[in-house]
Amino acid sequence: MRMYDIIKKKRDGGELSTEEIKYFVSGVTDGSIPDYQTSALCMAIYFKGMSVRETCDFTFAVRDSGDRLNFSEINGIRVDKHSTGGVGDKTSLVVAPVVASLGVKVAKMSGRGLGHTGGTIDKLEAIEGFNTTLSDADFIKQVNDIGFAIVGQSRQFAPADKKLYALRDVTATVDSMPLIAASIMGKKLAADDDCIVLDVKTGSGSFMKTVEDSKALARLMVDIGKSAGKKTVALITNMDRPLGCAIGNALEVIEAVETLNGHGPEDFTEVCITLAGHMLALAGKGNVKECKKMAEQAIQDGSALAKFKQTVAAQGGKVELIENTANFAKAKYVHAVKSVKTGYICKADTEAYGLASLALGAGRNTIEDAIDYSAGIMLKRKTGDFVKEGEEIATLLTNDESAIAKAEAMLLAATEIQQKKPKEEPLVYCTVE
Amino acid sequence: MRMYDIIKKKRDGGELSTEEIKYFVSGVTDGSIPDYQTSALCMAIYFKGMSVRETCDFTFAVRDSGDRLNFSEINGIRVDKHSTGGVGDKTSLVVAPVVASLGVKVAKMSGRGLGHTGGTIDKLEAIEGFNTTLSDADFIKQVNDIGFAIVGQSRQFAPADKKLYALRDVTATVDSMPLIAASIMGKKLAADDDCIVLDVKTGSGSFMKTVEDSKALARLMVDIGKSAGKKTVALITNMDRPLGCAIGNALEVIEAVETLNGHGPEDFTEVCITLAGHMLALAGKGNVKECKKMAEQAIQDGSALAKFKQTVAAQGGKVELIENTANFAKAKYVHAVKSVKTGYICKADTEAYGLASLALGAGRNTIEDAIDYSAGIMLKRKTGDFVKEGEEIATLLTNDESAIAKAEAMLLAATEIQQKKPKEEPLVYCTVE
Repeated sequence: MRMYDIIKKKRDGGELSTEEIKYFVSGVTDGSIPDYQTSALCMAIYFKGMSVRETCDFTFAVRDSGDRLNFSEINGIRVDKHSTGGVGDKTSLVVAPVVASLGVKVAKMSGRGLGHTGGTIDKLEAIEGFNTTLSDADFIKQVNDIGFAIVGQSRQFAPADKKLYALRDVTATVDSMPLIAASIMGKKLAADDDCIVLDVKTGSGSFMKTVEDSKALARLMVDIGKSAGKKTVALITNMDRPLGCAIGNALEVIEAVETLNGHGPEDFTEVCITLAGHMLALAGKGNVKECKKMAEQAIQDGSALAKFKQTVAAQGGKVELIENTANFAKAKYVHAVKSVKTGYICKADTEAYGLASLALGAGRNTIEDAIDYSAGIMLKRKTGDFVKEGEEIATLLTNDESAIAKAEAMLLAATEIQQKKPKEEPLVYCTVE
Repeated sequence: MRMYDIIKKKRDGGELSTEEIKYFVSGVTDGSIPDYQTSALCMAIYFKGMSVRETCDFTFAVRDSGDRLNFSEINGIRVDKHSTGGVGDKTSLVVAPVVASLGVKVAKMSGRGLGHTGGTIDKLEAIEGFNTTLSDADFIKQVNDIGFAIVGQSRQFAPADKKLYALRDVTATVDSMPLIAASIMGKKLAADDDCIVLDVKTGSGSFMKTVEDSKALARLMVDIGKSAGKKTVALITNMDRPLGCAIGNALEVIEAVETLNGHGPEDFTEVCITLAGHMLALAGKGNVKECKKMAEQAIQDGSALAKFKQTVAAQGGKVELIENTANFAKAKYVHAVKSVKTGYICKADTEAYGLASLALGAGRNTIEDAIDYSAGIMLKRKTGDFVKEGEEIATLLTNDESAIAKAEAMLLAATEIQQKKPKEEPLVYCTVE
C-alpha cells in the first residue's frame, strides 16, 4: 500500500477502504507517513469528504491508535456527556452530579481549556485541593462508591488525533466535518461508556456556525457512536451567546453551585436539565420528559448538590468552598464595562467573549500557560436584553490590571446594540437520535 | 503574512495577491515554509485553480528563485523551442540546426531524461566526446560564431520548482494545470530568449491526455510567455504514438541525422518542419508558410546538416559518427518483437513504449542511473499500420539480455491490434498564439 495512491484516490473522489484508512492512521501514529502527505490527504478530504463508512473506520482507527479504558468493573449503566466546546459551558459540573444522584454512573474524563474555550478540569482545579489525577483503580472505586468521578486525560488516548489535529491546525484543514467528527468521537470512544449524549454547540462561539452544519455534524457523530455499539443522542444547543452569566474558572464553579442550589441562570439551568434528562433516558430511567422531571427534582431536593459535595470531598477538594462560595479567592481588580449606547443587545460574538476572558487570565494561549482561577467575566446583560447608555453590561475580574482595557474593548466590540429587539433563538434547537 | 492564511484563502477559492505568491515561493526556496503547508496549498490549488494573473505571478516568482541568464551579448534574435516531453522526441536535434542555419540564434539549455521520457542532453552525449558543459563565455561565443550551442542545466535555475516538483510528485498534486505551466515556464523564462515555441504534447505519452486539456495548458503558457515580454506560440502535437521510429539515445541521434539528410520518418520530419517554421516566423523571417519552406530548403541543400556537424565539432563530439552513423556502438542483443495477431494497430500506449525502452537500459529510474546509449527500440509498425501475425513490429536493442522478455511483454501489452483501421489523427492539432 502506498500513501501516494491513497491521496490520489481521495483527490479523485474515491472511497477509501478500511485497510487504506488503517494504514494511514497507523502511519500517522508511528510517524512513518511524512507530514506533507498527511496534510495533502487532509486537504483532499476537506474537498471530497468521507462517507459515513469511511468516517466510522477513520474514527475507530483513531480510537485504536492509543490506550483504551476498560470500565467492566463499574457496576451499572455508564453514561457520558460530551460538549463540542463553548464559552461559559460548565454543564458537566451540574449534569454529572444530577445524573449520578439518580443512580446512573458517570465515569468522566475531561480536558483542559485552550484558546477561547475553557476546560472542565481547569474549572474543578479552581476548587482548592481538588485532585484530577486518580489511579484507574481509585477512579473505578469512586464511580462504584458514589456514582461520579472525574479525571483529566493523563493517558495516551488517541495519539493519532493529537498529531492530526496539530497538523490540521496549521494547514487550514480543521473545518472538515468528517475530520471533526472522527477527532471528537475517536477520543470519546477510547473511554468505555454505554451511553453518550453529545452537546453540539452552534453559533459564533463554536466549530459549527450554522444550525444546519451542526445538525450534520451531530448526525455523523451519532451514527459513529451507534456503529461503535453505544446508545448515542445529540442535542444542538445555542452558542450564539455564552451559556449562563459566568465565564472563568472559579466564577463558573460558583454559578454551577448556584444552579445545583436551584437558583442558577435560567438558560443554563434549562440546558442542564435537558442534557441530564437525555442522559437518564438513554440509561433506561424513563422517557425524556419523565427524566427531565427527575433531574429537576434532584436539584430541588438537594440530592444533586449533595452528590457534587460528595465528589469534591472524595477527590480532596475543599467542600467549604462549595458550601459557601463567598470563600473562593477574589480577583484583585473588578471593572464594570458600561454600555456606550441605548438599545437591545442584538448580537454577541461568543468567541470574542471567550478571548476577552482569556486576556484577563482565565485561559491559556499555549498548553504551558498558568491560569488565574479567579479571573473572568460576569455578564449582566445578554443577547435580547435592553440596556441603557452607561449601564453595566459586564464585570471584568482579574489580577492583571494591564489586561482590563484590552478586555473591555474586546467585549464592547463583540456586543452589537440596536434599536430593534432581536428575534429570540431557542436554547436547544433539536435532538438528533 | 502567514502561510496559514494563504492556504485558507486559496482553499476558500480566493485569488492570492502578488505579495502572497512571492511570500510562498520565497519561503519554499529558503526552506522557511514547512513541506506540510506547501503540500496543503498545492492540493488547494489542485482543487481551486489559479487565475492567469496568479499563474503569471507564480511563474515569475519561480523564475526569480534562482539564477537567470543574460544573453545580451548574443547578436541577433534568440529563439528557443520547448517540448512538454514525449517518447522518441528528438526534434531539438533537427530544428535547432535548421533554424541556426537560417541565421536565427539558438542558445539552448536542455534537460536529462527521467522515467519514460528521454532528455536531449542524454541523446547528445551518445555522440562520443560531445561536451554538454560549457562556460557562459564559451556558450555565448559559440552561439555568436555558429548560431547554435547546447548545454545541460548545470546552474541553479528555478530551485523553487525543483523543491515544489519533488513534493508534488509524492502528494498527488502534479496534475494541476497552473502548477504545470508555472513549472515549465518558470524554468524556461530563466533563460533569456526573445521568442519561444512551445511543443505541447497530447495523448498517452504526455502530461495532458486530451487535446482540450493540452490546448488549455498551451493557452496558459503562451499567456505567461507574453506577459514576460517574449514572443510565444504553442503547437499541440500528437503523442498518442511515439514520434518517428527510434526510441533510445544513439538510435534517436541516428534518426535525427537521417532526417537532416532528408530521409527521416515522415511524421517526425513534418513535426520538425512545422516547429522550425514557427521558430523562424517568430524571429521575423516571414510568415509560417514561407518559413516552413525555408526549413525544408535548409534540409534539402544540406545546410542544416552542416550546421549540426559544426555544432558537434565545436562541442568536441566525434563528427565521423554523424558522417557515418553506422559507426555508432551497437547493442549486443537485437531482438525482433513479432505481432501475435493480424490486424491494424489501433492504439499504442506511448508511455509504456517509453518504459519498455527504459527497461532495456535507455533511460533512468533515478537521477543517478547510468544510461546504455546503444539501447532502445526501433519501431517497424506504428498506429494505423496493418500487421500480420508473426510479422516484426519492433526491434529491441540492449546490452542486458535479461531485460528483453520484460520489454517485449510491455511492448506487446501496449500495442492494441484490431480488425478495423483506426481513424487517422493529425500530427499537429493546432496552433495557440
